[in-house]
Amino acid sequence: MYPKDLLQQIAFIKEIDKIKYIERRTKLFNSDRRENDAEHSWHLALMALVLAQHANEPIDILKVIKMLLIHDLVEIDAGDTFLFDTTKNHDNTEEERTAAARIFGLLPEKQAEEFKAIWEEFEARQTAEAKFARSMDRLEPLLQNVSNKGGTWQEFNVGYSQVLQKQNVHEAISTTIDHYAKELIQQSVEAGILRKD
Amino acid sequence: MYPKDLLQQIAFIKEIDKIKYIERRTKLFNSDRRENDAEHSWHLALMALVLAQHANEPIDILKVIKMLLIHDLVEIDAGDTFLFDTTKNHDNTEEERTAAARIFGLLPEKQAEEFKAIWEEFEARQTAEAKFARSMDRLEPLLQNVSNKGGTWQEFNVGYSQVLQKQNVHEAISTTIDHYAKELIQQSVEAGILRKD
Ligand SMILES: [Ca+2]
Repeated sequence: MYPKDLLQQIAFIKEIDKIKYIERRTKLFNSDRRENDAEHSWHLALMALVLAQHANEPIDILKVIKMLLIHDLVEIDAGDTFLFDTTKNHDNTEEERTAAARIFGLLPEKQAEEFKAIWEEFEARQTAEAKFARSMDRLEPLLQNVSNKGGTWQEFNVGYSQVLQKQNVHEAISTTIDHYAKELIQQSVEAGILRKD
Repeated sequence: MYPKDLLQQIAFIKEIDKIKYIERRTKLFNSDRRENDAEHSWHLALMALVLAQHANEPIDILKVIKMLLIHDLVEIDAGDTFLFDTTKNHDNTEEERTAAARIFGLLPEKQAEEFKAIWEEFEARQTAEAKFARSMDRLEPLLQNVSNKGGTWQEFNVGYSQVLQKQNVHEAISTTIDHYAKELIQQSVEAGILRKD
């Protein structure tokens, strides 16, 4: 009665609701509540839309938004990995690839392939779109930690060098955002909310 | 030092975090927790991406996604209005227009105008993109209430005719989604999770 596509798509739409239960370490701006992956993905997509003009080269903003809307779906199976957790492999693990196959595999075949390809492009970080998406993914927790007077930096005793190293993703795609991020980090040390190491 | 645009955009990015505290009546799929507007907006954007092929006419999917990412931002000031609340005016109230002016007004002028225009286009429901966005906005709570064995229909004693009336938005843009929605409503009555009136 309905196109078979529709029922597969509805199954996917129901399944991805589970991302609303995946909790990140980082807290909301001005809050003690931790952010979940759905809220995070929404915020990044809108950040990309708003900040697109600062990319050093032309970007396909629709593709960036697609990447950001789906980039954390694998965490439904694989869980969130804390940015500063040095004991875990962060990207494109076997577990994440299996999750991508299962979750995107709920969609009609052609769409499943398209979504998997977008996720893989994001993970590979080679294209301008993937680099810009990555920049948004790192900028949000930086803004949150500054806004929370140290946030997870204080909670998990993270120091200046580690933060600087995790924030080295911006310069590959946006000089403006890179300068701004470095300045925020510097100011955080001066304000005493980020430990100089 | 930074482009003035950037600092205005960052102020906007911080402000819209507040949407994560705006609670809807509708609960998550398979859950007793109510959904917030950020989660809702994320889900609608991804639903639009997945279901775009079912629109009766060509739609600009980037515009639909923009609409859905920002459509509830006015609720930061104006609050959420429950779909079945008959005591309140639902759309484009004076309060919402004031909220749109304040919140989008944080952005650089040209961008503020662009966002306000997209929000107004969504509210006016005349274009194919606005109709498709509206269809997603109504389909999600329908799916949630079915998934929750009645959800807010039972909680607020909402009957068949009211649900059917609120779900009359799909036929203007998608015959496939319209048929599917009507079938779900019918099945809900038969399953005893929606009161026949
Ligand atoms: Ca609403």
